[in-house]
Amino acid sequence: MSDVVIAGVGQIPVGEHWDVSLRSQAVRAVLAAIKDAGGLKPQAMYIGNLLAPTVSHQSNLGALLPDWSNLTGIEGITVEAAGASGGGAFRLGYLAVASGFVDTAVVVGVEKITDVVGPELERAIAESTDYDYELAQGLTLTAQAGLVMQLYLHQYKPPREAFAAFPMLAHENAVGNPFAMYRKPISQKAYDSAPMVSEPVNLMDMAPYADGAAAVVLTRRDLVPDSVSHPLVKVSGSSVASDTLALHDRSDPLAFDAARLSVEGACRQAGILPQDVDFFELTDAFSIYAVLSLEAAGFAPRGEGWKLGLDGTLRRDGKLPILTMGGFKARGNPLGAAGVYQIVEAALQLRGEAGSNQIPNARRALVQNLGGPASTAVAHVLERVNG
Amino acid sequence: MSDVVIAGVGQIPVGEHWDVSLRSQAVRAVLAAIKDAGGLKPQAMYIGNLLAPTVSHQSNLGALLPDWSNLTGIEGITVEAAGASGGGAFRLGYLAVASGFVDTAVVVGVEKITDVVGPELERAIAESTDYDYELAQGLTLTAQAGLVMQLYLHQYKPPREAFAAFPMLAHENAVGNPFAMYRKPISQKAYDSAPMVSEPVNLMDMAPYADGAAAVVLTRRDLVPDSVSHPLVKVSGSSVASDTLALHDRSDPLAFDAARLSVEGACRQAGILPQDVDFFELTDAFSIYAVLSLEAAGFAPRGEGWKLGLDGTLRRDGKLPILTMGGFKARGNPLGAAGVYQIVEAALQLRGEAGSNQIPNARRALVQNLGGPASTAVAHVLERVNG
Repeated sequence: MSDVVIAGVGQIPVGEHWDVSLRSQAVRAVLAAIKDAGGLKPQAMYIGNLLAPTVSHQSNLGALLPDWSNLTGIEGITVEAAGASGGGAFRLGYLAVASGFVDTAVVVGVEKITDVVGPELERAIAESTDYDYELAQGLTLTAQAGLVMQLYLHQYKPPREAFAAFPMLAHENAVGNPFAMYRKPISQKAYDSAPMVSEPVNLMDMAPYADGAAAVVLTRRDLVPDSVSHPLVKVSGSSVASDTLALHDRSDPLAFDAARLSVEGACRQAGILPQDVDFFELTDAFSIYAVLSLEAAGFAPRGEGWKLGLDGTLRRDGKLPILTMGGFKARGNPLGAAGVYQIVEAALQLRGEAGSNQIPNARRALVQNLGGPASTAVAHVLERVNG
Repeated sequence: MSDVVIAGVGQIPVGEHWDVSLRSQAVRAVLAAIKDAGGLKPQAMYIGNLLAPTVSHQSNLGALLPDWSNLTGIEGITVEAAGASGGGAFRLGYLAVASGFVDTAVVVGVEKITDVVGPELERAIAESTDYDYELAQGLTLTAQAGLVMQLYLHQYKPPREAFAAFPMLAHENAVGNPFAMYRKPISQKAYDSAPMVSEPVNLMDMAPYADGAAAVVLTRRDLVPDSVSHPLVKVSGSSVASDTLALHDRSDPLAFDAARLSVEGACRQAGILPQDVDFFELTDAFSIYAVLSLEAAGFAPRGEGWKLGLDGTLRRDGKLPILTMGGFKARGNPLGAAGVYQIVEAALQLRGEAGSNQIPNARRALVQNLGGPASTAVAHVLERVNG
């Protein structure tokens, strides 16, 4: 079986696209990815999306988007796993190509939040919590993050201001990413004075929900057209794990078991240890989740993940760069599309095309997409294979 | 690569389950399927569902359902393709196991429509049409079927009353299916006097939306526990095709191109022709769709599919039995679960466990799950492999 490779990537800027419909967003990313893959025609489209049925009143994107992408007739299926929908779509696209029954698949993540504003949007996003036991009581995703962060502060007593390192790093890295939403640095002072959203989570601790679409073309290595001159990126590990959806059902809410299991699974398949990667694209939907992801992957002991933000380890020239193109916080969090943005960004790094954000000699990446407080965790190991 | 087989099946009765939550429905089907598979533990759960985000305010079933099924931690992902969500989930579960990276997967289709009633439900279901160009103008799935049937009557001039054969056959077959919603025969007279819903579609031409859950365990043949004594069912062909989501974008709305393409794809993989199957589980969400499915699969010339309903061909003792356990019309149409019910029913036929509905010597089935007017079409060829 030939390697499964990313032959092309495409993305549109993350932001508030009041004037661009859901389908147009997706089509732009899909066509860009296909062009980048030398015009390779996919036989299937797997779509990561969370909110279209609630916010845009649109289901069955699997028929809509192929047609509008001039691919009428091909297989089209939508994949949902809350904030990990994009990673989930990539996972299933990978398995489809790996099975040998689909030669080439395009995976697109798309989210259109600006079809509604205010409480209706908030409510739609919060449906990723357990409706019967959490959301019915008013618990949103941000409230969940507040509870988790409060517990962390209580249990491990880190300095509160240390969490600033994560949004500051994200914003610093977004400056060099033309597809990022917030391309400006923020200061410790701005963090310290940010308004509280769900105590102790402040405005800088949470990534902004936004519109966006990103796509990748997956194929067998032997099918990549000769005209493709950029390096290829191989999928060498892939894993998904879940946890209880309701936070109150976890004996240890700070453990992020699914995050750990998915990293273990992806690294086992790739035959590596987590420390063998050159960078780690994690999910900083909330800064506390970035900390817990570092701990769950084994990069820091429990209760000490926050320290990595302070000693330069996570910067682009550090030992374990994260959020290299701005992360969720500064690139923006287009929910069901976010996981595909992560893959696109990692692929660009591995291809040496990350511009001023380039990590020198990046050969191998770990990419992890979380839904909620690691209720779903999708991890992939990507490797540069030539060039 | 070992064959991918259905090692176990489970289902709950289709109906209006006011007293059973979405999660409880799904768990019952999942546990029944795992038990039927000799207790084989899945590493992944793929969930077919359409309405949970809108009707039950619940997304990320991929975390919720594994946990409630005592499978906390395993991979869990939701698949949506309108009325073909169940077939789509089965397709992706099949590809996952075929890839070799997932040993055993449970595919569950679940739909809980009775969390709301009336216009809210109607609207949620209608989101499977193109919102911007169809639903915004008031076009529902039933209205689409009305337009398609009107065109068929105009173009081919079949006797209007001939369509009665399809719901009559469905109801006749449902009598012997303990999981069916309407276990009583209906008469030509009842059909002829049924109230009009969306002219010319009358109440008997459309399947009733209902609650339900069905599940199958997919695994490699070499992993099936020795304790499993029932025959195994092999997946020998699998294919998905799409069409334009908006009906008005089709040059020939009666062609059901996606239905044809998916049958061709599945049969090509299985190395058979459609006429080599012993029965055909098609999608009779509307009786006109049953007719067009027969034509698209090549069982009748264009404009003549309705004739097959009149000469006994489609009955259990006929040349091409369809709707063998009651079809969508009489088993009920639990939308995102329907495609998995079709697989369960076909597997029971192939195992020789269809009771009074048993088709003698059933060795090979074609199963097709449509979303909307064949906007999405999922086809599988299933074969009995032993026993």
